[in-house]
Amino acid sequence: GGSFRASEHQHARYNPLRDDWVLVSAHRMKRPWQGQLEKPPPEDVPRWDPNNPLCPGATRANGEVNPKYEGTFVFPNDFPALQPDAPEPGDSDHPLFRAAAARGVCKVMCFHPWSDLTLPLMSLPEIRAVIDAWAELMAELGASYPWVQIFENKGAMMGCSNPHPHCQVWASSFLPNEACLEDRTQRQHLSQHGVPMLLEYAEQEARRKERLVVENADWLVVVPYWATWPYQTLLLPRRHVCRLQDLRDGERDSLASIMQRLLIKYDNLFEVSFPYSMGWHGAPTGPYLEEDCGHWQLHAHYYPPLLRSATIRKFMVGYEMLAQAQRDLTPEQAAERLRNLPDVHYKQRAK
Amino acid sequence: GGSFRASEHQHARYNPLRDDWVLVSAHRMKRPWQGQLEKPPPEDVPRWDPNNPLCPGATRANGEVNPKYEGTFVFPNDFPALQPDAPEPGDSDHPLFRAAAARGVCKVMCFHPWSDLTLPLMSLPEIRAVIDAWAELMAELGASYPWVQIFENKGAMMGCSNPHPHCQVWASSFLPNEACLEDRTQRQHLSQHGVPMLLEYAEQEARRKERLVVENADWLVVVPYWATWPYQTLLLPRRHVCRLQDLRDGERDSLASIMQRLLIKYDNLFEVSFPYSMGWHGAPTGPYLEEDCGHWQLHAHYYPPLLRSATIRKFMVGYEMLAQAQRDLTPEQAAERLRNLPDVHYKQRAK
Ligand SMILES: O=P(O)(O)O[C@H]1O[C@H](CO)[C@@H](O)[C@H](O)[C@H]1O
Ligand SMILES: O=P(O)(O)O[C@H]1O[C@H](CO)[C@@H](O)[C@H](O)[C@H]1O
Repeated sequence: GGSFRASEHQHARYNPLRDDWVLVSAHRMKRPWQGQLEKPPPEDVPRWDPNNPLCPGATRANGEVNPKYEGTFVFPNDFPALQPDAPEPGDSDHPLFRAAAARGVCKVMCFHPWSDLTLPLMSLPEIRAVIDAWAELMAELGASYPWVQIFENKGAMMGCSNPHPHCQVWASSFLPNEACLEDRTQRQHLSQHGVPMLLEYAEQEARRKERLVVENADWLVVVPYWATWPYQTLLLPRRHVCRLQDLRDGERDSLASIMQRLLIKYDNLFEVSFPYSMGWHGAPTGPYLEEDCGHWQLHAHYYPPLLRSATIRKFMVGYEMLAQAQRDLTPEQAAERLRNLPDVHYKQRAK
Repeated sequence: GGSFRASEHQHARYNPLRDDWVLVSAHRMKRPWQGQLEKPPPEDVPRWDPNNPLCPGATRANGEVNPKYEGTFVFPNDFPALQPDAPEPGDSDHPLFRAAAARGVCKVMCFHPWSDLTLPLMSLPEIRAVIDAWAELMAELGASYPWVQIFENKGAMMGCSNPHPHCQVWASSFLPNEACLEDRTQRQHLSQHGVPMLLEYAEQEARRKERLVVENADWLVVVPYWATWPYQTLLLPRRHVCRLQDLRDGERDSLASIMQRLLIKYDNLFEVSFPYSMGWHGAPTGPYLEEDCGHWQLHAHYYPPLLRSATIRKFMVGYEMLAQAQRDLTPEQAAERLRNLPDVHYKQRAK
């Protein structure tokens, strides 16, 4: 009984981008945690390690030697999940046993020559160089491949096997599940409401303010109304932009700035190099470059696993895998905490 | 080029139950792993610990004292994500900001009075008692709630905060995402093909054999053609059964037996208490008891995270979260490995 308060009363929220729901049970934050603790990331990563295959001058698994690169550096993934020339699986003999061809390329992009840096500790021009390199790869691989997935797994907790600041780029001959899903929901929204979903969403959030984390003239970051991970965020342009490579010069600078501000807040939250998986979604490419993709809006998703401290994560397990994602604090509470954190990185604060 | 071999050439496989795809890149098993290692589970769990709130005679968070139970024991979750009386969220003021009421109950079920046991080490009558308790809870909570999710998070890696053998049961006033999805795909299959999807699938797999792990007169376990987790399995009845509570006496005994055989193989794979999340899916309940649910087939999903050893897991992260699940060995390879493992638990083998 009593009147509804989101921070006290469990409820479900609709995710219009994935057409599914999340269960919000904020009162669960009170429960004690006696389960597994995560190891905090190592503090003593050497700046240069000749045995680290991502370092300038190091030898990679295939025997190639990296150049002494000074900015970003892109090279083919030595253990790619997608290769350009896999043969076609035969025709399916039954509707419950269907296979399809999957071709593509996997690249790795180092953000910086130093292993002991991360994006939030890089300068604005250095982050801007990463953005330019992303846009270039999107254009290059997107010329033929329908989907180019840029993503960063940061931290050992997110399956990242190398502390050197880097991301991956997997281009595929098919639209992956998440791309199909967002294509369908955004298309439907535009046709029903006459405005791209995420453009309208950004306008609404800019006005409502309670889920804003950081904003500037071109961009805003919110903990989306339907966030599943505790401190999940969505990075959105204010203008209608279909693809990374469409960003203007000024928008790339302001993107570097807002990324830096967001990632500093993330690190400051638990005073630890904040683990996450992040990635860009935009209009499909290749053959889709000829089609109308006006329903698409460029955006980046940040999915960080931590819940309460540097060592206590959210487990998306039993109920989440078998039934529905469940979160333990409201998106508004998460946004407020992030918003109120200092803009200066804890490692760079005057002692 | 060359002719297609699933164990060598990446391809995508269709999951008809979730209407999505998985990328299979078996050649990736060759890549070395230098990332995070998992802690193996503790070997020295005390059989009885008065400070463990799941033990007989122990005091729980709310001050209640557990009975000295000797079989299974069901009690309310002290930190429930779902409560029966949450007030209704107000009407949504915008289609991108939609909330819905979520009500329910969360229960915990201990499988056995001893903390140092797990299902594969329990006797057949003890496992049968768990199955009967599941069926009872399904019938009891399903009398009013549309969905009753039984699930077990096993192992610290799966967010399980207590080594005592137990599962959870969350009953909800709504159909969760996965239930909606499976309802839609199974309904469509029946209307298109005239036979329940998973009944047909079980018949096919019984004949094809290459993905079979264990089988008996009433049940079979396969690594499904579309498995995403390395050693994921699907437990299926051979007869058309809608719900757990519909199982006959003999089918409950044969279920205890096949669960024991599967779980012993799981433990034997890496000679470790095998972590997983598992859960039951069957026709919805409550108001749906009056409706035709003939498209549904009862089944259990097992989602284990381990990939190569007791300490190396599969990370479902960047590409998987942002694009599509990707697996590193074929379902046929996984099934063959499991099938060939001994039926005697490594802890019970004569030295
Ligand atoms: O209630 P428990 O077992 O402490 O919690 C565990 O299972 C829940 C249901 O899958 C998850 O929401 C939690 O993240 C997990 O830690
Ligand atoms: O290629 P990496 O970084 O070694 O691998 C990591 O990212 C991949 C893409 O998200 C995942 O499939 C792997 O499970 C993960 O460990």
